[in-house]
Amino acid sequence: MSKIEMRLIELGITLPSPPLPVASYVPFVRSGNQIYVSGQVSMAPDGGIKGKLGELDIETGKSAARLCGLNLLAQLKMACDGDLDRLVRVVKLNGFVNVLSDFDAIPMVINGCSDLMVEVFGEAGKHARSAVGVANLPLGFAVEVDGIFEIK
Amino acid sequence: MSKIEMRLIELGITLPSPPLPVASYVPFVRSGNQIYVSGQVSMAPDGGIKGKLGELDIETGKSAARLCGLNLLAQLKMACDGDLDRLVRVVKLNGFVNVLSDFDAIPMVINGCSDLMVEVFGEAGKHARSAVGVANLPLGFAVEVDGIFEIK
Amino acid sequence: MSKIEMRLIELGITLPSPPLPVASYVPFVRSGNQIYVSGQVSMAPDGGIKGKLGELDIETGKSAARLCGLNLLAQLKMACDGDLDRLVRVVKLNGFVNVLSDFDAIPMVINGCSDLMVEVFGEAGKHARSAVGVANLPLGFAVEVDGIFEIK
Repeated sequence: MSKIEMRLIELGITLPSPPLPVASYVPFVRSGNQIYVSGQVSMAPDGGIKGKLGELDIETGKSAARLCGLNLLAQLKMACDGDLDRLVRVVKLNGFVNVLSDFDAIPMVINGCSDLMVEVFGEAGKHARSAVGVANLPLGFAVEVDGIFEIK
Repeated sequence: MSKIEMRLIELGITLPSPPLPVASYVPFVRSGNQIYVSGQVSMAPDGGIKGKLGELDIETGKSAARLCGLNLLAQLKMACDGDLDRLVRVVKLNGFVNVLSDFDAIPMVINGCSDLMVEVFGEAGKHARSAVGVANLPLGFAVEVDGIFEIK
Repeated sequence: MSKIEMRLIELGITLPSPPLPVASYVPFVRSGNQIYVSGQVSMAPDGGIKGKLGELDIETGKSAARLCGLNLLAQLKMACDGDLDRLVRVVKLNGFVNVLSDFDAIPMVINGCSDLMVEVFGEAGKHARSAVGVANLPLGFAVEVDGIFEIK
């Protein structure tokens, strides 16, 4: 069993089934050594977390960002033909939080995704990121995160 | 005549003149095998499509996203010295929709751009993407899309 | 003294101390020849510029975007082990402006950052960019800009 698979088990993390490709865009594209993963929303088998931060509290927002992170990892695993040990580095995450216009604790929300990357990958999980508050997200989900990952 | 030029003719698509460089930023930059194209708004010779989704309907939004796609292709053609057959892959599109805060059919809008890429390039047009709803866009345009393209 | 350091002195520009890494994300990541710098807000030693464009005027917004640019340069200098002459090209900037939903002079605001890149680096400072208006930014700052830089 691969090192990262064992780490996921230690952490009690089961990756979701990656959402299937839809229409004209795909869940990820490889370019050189980089995997570009499409924006993953805070969707889960039970429906996931929808709504706007400011109505939702920060802890719920962090949980939503963690769901995005789990969906990113599920897509990344597909991109690595099932072997997450091929990850070299989480390069960049772009985090978008669905907010009321007076909610500004945006970094705390996106930490829910960032922390997951470091829990799973350690130093290789530390990434550059942006975090902004947007007017709405697909289907009203609370958080969306996309990412660039370097693999071997 | 190149394969993609013939495909554009079959589709009845005439690319617009790419907007000229302004001030301190440029329409595209090459880095390695990748072309980074600046955010293209839903501008057209007749003025294009401005306004917020929620006031505009979804079909108008899709048309706006398609205008962004045409502008992206026009810039990409410049970046390829006129030969779109040099495209290897549409890698990533970032779609920004100007929305009222309760409009969430954001993926359907951005499909107007994504579908165009696949109409023109087939499999090579399938891309990773993000789609978010923003509070406003340059000059009040309805949609903005930027992109990363791998070329040879 | 390096060419770019002399240029900074000519321009009377003192780079700020780059903000320290926080938690699970880092100020920059290198991938191949590219440096991905995390989103830098309009923070400064005196606190910087917070608020929404539409309440703030355009000149204040441009100053805020310039602060983002100074913070990007400070991080980039760290990424270059202190030698900004290693920059090959400013590849891409993503600019996010904290706006009231009727404010659309977004490009003029982000020019405050774009112009700085060209003042400092000349032709190599000309970049692709996107500029959008968002519902809020971390801690209520007025502008956030992230960037991709090619170095040698």
